[in-house]
Amino acid sequence: MCLSSDGTAVVILDQTLLPGETTFLELREPGELREAIVSLRVRGAPAIGIFAAYALYIIARRYSAESFEGFNSQIVKHSELLDSARPTAVNLSKQLRRMERLVLSLAESPTPKIIDAMREEAGRIQREDIEMCKAISEHGLALIGEGFGIMTHCNAGPLATSQYGTALGPILLAHEHGMALKVYSCETRPLLQGARLTTYELYKAGVDVTLICDNMASIVMKEGKINAVFVGCDRVAMNGDTANKVGTSGLAVLAKHYGIPFYVCCPSSTIDSACGTGVEIEIELREPQEIKEMFFEKPVAPSGVKCYNPSFDVTESSLITAIITEHGVCKAPYEQSLSRLGKRG
Amino acid sequence: MCLSSDGTAVVILDQTLLPGETTFLELREPGELREAIVSLRVRGAPAIGIFAAYALYIIARRYSAESFEGFNSQIVKHSELLDSARPTAVNLSKQLRRMERLVLSLAESPTPKIIDAMREEAGRIQREDIEMCKAISEHGLALIGEGFGIMTHCNAGPLATSQYGTALGPILLAHEHGMALKVYSCETRPLLQGARLTTYELYKAGVDVTLICDNMASIVMKEGKINAVFVGCDRVAMNGDTANKVGTSGLAVLAKHYGIPFYVCCPSSTIDSACGTGVEIEIELREPQEIKEMFFEKPVAPSGVKCYNPSFDVTESSLITAIITEHGVCKAPYEQSLSRLGKRG
Repeated sequence: MCLSSDGTAVVILDQTLLPGETTFLELREPGELREAIVSLRVRGAPAIGIFAAYALYIIARRYSAESFEGFNSQIVKHSELLDSARPTAVNLSKQLRRMERLVLSLAESPTPKIIDAMREEAGRIQREDIEMCKAISEHGLALIGEGFGIMTHCNAGPLATSQYGTALGPILLAHEHGMALKVYSCETRPLLQGARLTTYELYKAGVDVTLICDNMASIVMKEGKINAVFVGCDRVAMNGDTANKVGTSGLAVLAKHYGIPFYVCCPSSTIDSACGTGVEIEIELREPQEIKEMFFEKPVAPSGVKCYNPSFDVTESSLITAIITEHGVCKAPYEQSLSRLGKRG
Repeated sequence: MCLSSDGTAVVILDQTLLPGETTFLELREPGELREAIVSLRVRGAPAIGIFAAYALYIIARRYSAESFEGFNSQIVKHSELLDSARPTAVNLSKQLRRMERLVLSLAESPTPKIIDAMREEAGRIQREDIEMCKAISEHGLALIGEGFGIMTHCNAGPLATSQYGTALGPILLAHEHGMALKVYSCETRPLLQGARLTTYELYKAGVDVTLICDNMASIVMKEGKINAVFVGCDRVAMNGDTANKVGTSGLAVLAKHYGIPFYVCCPSSTIDSACGTGVEIEIELREPQEIKEMFFEKPVAPSGVKCYNPSFDVTESSLITAIITEHGVCKAPYEQSLSRLGKRG
């Protein structure tokens, strides 16, 4: 993800077309910027936060002739529109709030100056994400042994962040260090981010990766193939409950049953100090077509059949061995370990 | 499933084309009869047992001019070929052994008489299955309450048996009795039997059915939507360990975690007295293409990526609340409850 060379558009790799097609999009219209989040052309909690910051800058350019009041009300309006694109990941709203605060702090400056500052801030958010993912990768690496079998779900790799990734960061780093790993990637229905994006990233990097259907996690764990599960996440409540791609909570229950450590990797920006427990996290419900039709040659269920399509689920903190952030490894009791991080950040 | 009116072919509904196309196939060549099992045109442990019995009769007709020795050696050869089509479900080999024993018991009869007896025996196997499924449905019905939410996996309905079904039997019977149920059908990757067959059967019958992806089972259970899980099975070991469609063991772990009863429904012919524990059950491994390509418009993972594609998994008996057969409801300790069934059968 980056700005176009003339700084008038955000450039993204359209993740909905991977692994078959590598298509870069230049987005500049407010409608198409929001649509890219809704349709998952850009996805992954950290990545949509960075994207939204750039998007708000691109939109801000339209209002360079406005007075501060007019400019700020446009920023607030468009920030809310972008924020409403997806409800579960906290990074989206956090980075938009950060951009709004920046604008307010520059109320005395001429509008073009504010716009320049927004561009710098979005770039700073992206560079911070790279640093955080690097630190997460190093903390996570300490939990991986030679020859480990590792399971992951959905995609928390470079595509979901700006570099390295969260859950895939420790794996890619271990691979760079010459460690032999066997990674099992759950395909992650309905949108197949595990099949389309995670195997694509690991395979390209030369990591030994095996694709499985989500319902094969139990047999793979039972057969002793897995030493640790690494996943990313979209929001962490202060008690350690964690929202991530639907299916994550099931993997955590299985990991506990089979005695396998279950690690959640995220930048500390994913920890929501306003959220006490997972019960407060809104779970996005998506369209039935994603289950019944999308990707398929023909519909795979009768057209009238109802679908339930939650995009995320909440994993209770009692199932999580550790939450790995850029500041280090947090363990239970999470109320304390996560609060300490808050004070630090 | 039935014989063609002239008795020269087995007629099946091609389950690989459902729900989009309703195509009946007349099968008479040994190769195409075996291929129908391998390709899952006919599937479901009880159904492939019945189909194999009919298939062996159809093949036997080719050897009506043979002496008993020549005839019997052809029967043994073709029975082995059919048996090797799929390894996990015990019903396939059990019904073929039953047909072989019948042939041996008629060694003194003229070959055409033996062939007639084979046709009758195959019909008897099918009628017995109908009776067994009816009895299973009634025993299972006693475990269902008004307004229950029920989860099921793969397809254990009429398509997998000859009528009623095993796991869907109690559900269909409860619906006939006017009970309001909410059924959640896991889509069952990679071949989507839950989406394509179970929602098709329940929707046609007017049952309130909701399709979910396999990885959504955890959130649906956690949200309190499920009062019981009903699944079929392909082989039961004498300690109660049960092989069924991959993903079943994961659902059982989740059900235990969330405190939900987990019921396995099967005719007693699925209990394998030669098999002590689940460790002895061979798990069929299938082609990677089923995960990466089949059903999809385009491949969903890089072509070089490895896949692990076990068709079944084993659920440990400690996770199973009860095994429901035509003789009633067996509970732990299964060594005793299943042995008593064996003496009865």
